[in-house]
Amino acid sequence: MPPIRLYELVIDNGLSMSPFVWRTRYALAHKGLPVECVPLGFTEIAPRFAGRHKTVPVIEDGGELVCDSWVIADHLDRAYPDRRPLFAAPGERAMVRFFDAWFSGEILRRCFGIYALDIHDAARPADRPYFRKSREARVGLTLEEFVAGREERVGAVREALGPLRRHLGDGPFIGGDAPNYADYIALGGLLWIAGVATVPLLAHDDALLAWWQRGLDLYDGLARDARLRPLAG
Amino acid sequence: MPPIRLYELVIDNGLSMSPFVWRTRYALAHKGLPVECVPLGFTEIAPRFAGRHKTVPVIEDGGELVCDSWVIADHLDRAYPDRRPLFAAPGERAMVRFFDAWFSGEILRRCFGIYALDIHDAARPADRPYFRKSREARVGLTLEEFVAGREERVGAVREALGPLRRHLGDGPFIGGDAPNYADYIALGGLLWIAGVATVPLLAHDDALLAWWQRGLDLYDGLARDARLRPLAG
Repeated sequence: MPPIRLYELVIDNGLSMSPFVWRTRYALAHKGLPVECVPLGFTEIAPRFAGRHKTVPVIEDGGELVCDSWVIADHLDRAYPDRRPLFAAPGERAMVRFFDAWFSGEILRRCFGIYALDIHDAARPADRPYFRKSREARVGLTLEEFVAGREERVGAVREALGPLRRHLGDGPFIGGDAPNYADYIALGGLLWIAGVATVPLLAHDDALLAWWQRGLDLYDGLARDARLRPLAG
Repeated sequence: MPPIRLYELVIDNGLSMSPFVWRTRYALAHKGLPVECVPLGFTEIAPRFAGRHKTVPVIEDGGELVCDSWVIADHLDRAYPDRRPLFAAPGERAMVRFFDAWFSGEILRRCFGIYALDIHDAARPADRPYFRKSREARVGLTLEEFVAGREERVGAVREALGPLRRHLGDGPFIGGDAPNYADYIALGGLLWIAGVATVPLLAHDDALLAWWQRGLDLYDGLARDARLRPLAG
């Protein structure tokens, strides 16, 4: 079959760095579907789709454009029912939705307050003014003010990760014996951070790191990259 | 088939009040299995099982005693494969385990610090000295010291419930269109509180209340009871 085209967001060093694109990359690998990545900077997304889509991931699958990581996940299970399902039962999908609500609200939101300026600094020079202007308007502060005192807020994220840490005492992956879409959500979030972080998120002995390494090993080391910065320190 | 015997924990007014027993009552109803409840006070549990089991739920199913709500849930799916499964896929079970880690660690743990003295006061008089002694030894404070200033901590629980509130914007139940074991975990926790609460946990306009009422309606109003105290106010 022809590869599915995946539009992704890249920073200046070429790394893919959207937590939502990473979910989709893992989802495509989970289903064993061939993929062709198209890197875009922040300011290239809207022009590329003539304003119809302003965020990635976007996939092009047989001429059809599909946008939004959850819409894409559902599309993939519907369009490729013969491949390994992302959601084996409606209840699994619902519980992964809960996981996403938890992870996005409790972890990613807090991380943005720690890494917003790092993202700016790692972005392609042409994208930085747009990133600064749009995000400063959203938070009502300069990026520098927004991340001030961030070292003291790292501890709150480590504590908020408690339920995930306790859960991974149960098995190798969030999804159990095998990874599921919840693993891809969490790995995507941490890859976003590891792409830009100038302060480590986790302590060097965090029990989550064993799972993180297993995640980087998935699908022939899909996400493993020497340009990733240390997630722990 | 003969009913499954369920040993439960009751307070002075006869209400069943263990969050873990409630999970099992809902799980038995989910699978459509007949049940016969045996009420026990805190101090009656260990003697009833000659010290072999110190906590409920315990079920007696065809002469076999099974203890611990998760062990019971797995037993029911294994022993009654022709009935509606509690976990339709391994990934669903794993994600409900995560939900339990989150709910127990972020919600129930905080609630104990608010309602510990209410539990004591609602327990059968014969159970109160045991409850006080065992719980005071565990927390290293008197129950009165432990719950002091609790009104100010109610807000933290309401905030911690954010991921659940956002998730229930998606569908009627935590498990999606139909309730699953995650619903029973959360309903069980709130039934525990509603059995004893002298201060309401939720604001009167909390979006969670619509789901709570749907939960009380499940299985012919299994848990609905005039003795329950207001969960919101």
